[in-house]
Amino acid sequence: MPKVVDHEERRRELAEAVWRIVQRDGIDHASVRAVAAESGWSSGSLRHYFPTQDSLLGFAMELAYRRFIARLEKIDTSVGNRELVRAFAHEMLALDDERRVEAAVLLSFLPRAMVEPSLHELERYGTRELYGEIARVLTAAQEAGELRDGVVPMKAARRTIVLIDGLNIHHQLGPDELTAEDMIEAVDEHLDRLFI
Amino acid sequence: MPKVVDHEERRRELAEAVWRIVQRDGIDHASVRAVAAESGWSSGSLRHYFPTQDSLLGFAMELAYRRFIARLEKIDTSVGNRELVRAFAHEMLALDDERRVEAAVLLSFLPRAMVEPSLHELERYGTRELYGEIARVLTAAQEAGELRDGVVPMKAARRTIVLIDGLNIHHQLGPDELTAEDMIEAVDEHLDRLFI
Repeated sequence: MPKVVDHEERRRELAEAVWRIVQRDGIDHASVRAVAAESGWSSGSLRHYFPTQDSLLGFAMELAYRRFIARLEKIDTSVGNRELVRAFAHEMLALDDERRVEAAVLLSFLPRAMVEPSLHELERYGTRELYGEIARVLTAAQEAGELRDGVVPMKAARRTIVLIDGLNIHHQLGPDELTAEDMIEAVDEHLDRLFI
Repeated sequence: MPKVVDHEERRRELAEAVWRIVQRDGIDHASVRAVAAESGWSSGSLRHYFPTQDSLLGFAMELAYRRFIARLEKIDTSVGNRELVRAFAHEMLALDDERRVEAAVLLSFLPRAMVEPSLHELERYGTRELYGEIARVLTAAQEAGELRDGVVPMKAARRTIVLIDGLNIHHQLGPDELTAEDMIEAVDEHLDRLFI
């Protein structure tokens, strides 16, 4: 009987090893060799799944986006549009250990996405997915007459992502100067400007 | 007669070589060796000025902050507080080639500042300087009765920096999706919420 290998599970394990390294040592230390050491795999088997460092980093980034999206899909949509956008924002803010790691990994990827085309494409795809989720709810809110006059759902969705990324950066670098509570307050004030 | 060496000028030249590499290839390629090749110096003389990669990157980051601050100091302060905050924001936004390079360099440093203590300290110092400049003007504006009720100058200054960094990230990664005009508009709307 052939050995059944759960490729997806193995790739996930490796991506999580990448995350630990990125968070602890920085993204420039997430080489194929370092990930092999961290995960207990050989560099050879690792290269079977991820032939290059960028493919490994790309998968880790993709996994972070998927985890965001999976959490967004679990949110109770009966809470109303304003609460739904708020819940989406909270899933993206670095408010607990899981979200802090994800946010740190995504922020570490950004500079690399500026110079590496495959990672740039992936970053754009992920941002559009998250942005699309928020734009969809804001459009529904507008149709239900819940938005203030002059609010453009697409533009407001983009501003929401801009705000979240700006908050996460400053919270990661100075958590005592921009606290978790400050992030929540900033999002609430942003929502006050969008919703009636 | 002993040879006069302008150390500061040499360090600046090297920092600018770091910038070119960061922008073109990404920060993980800004090794002492690569900077030597880029600047036409030997690795040996380079190590005389910057014994480690982090000291080199730190100086490049410091230089970017100094250039921001030097530009802020040149702004005509007679334009009024609102226009002054607007001008500060514009100096930090990636609105032309010079500011795009600086913003790209600073964004590339952020993930490294998360894990490297000396760079973290430098990043905090630079952010506080920029934040302090804005907070100072907003405080003067409040004393002159120019701010809306409930606006807290320190908090508003921090939000301004958060907004600028968020905008710069998304503009760098998708300049057609978040244009220079969108950045200017977002800052103007932010100012409308602060000033009467």
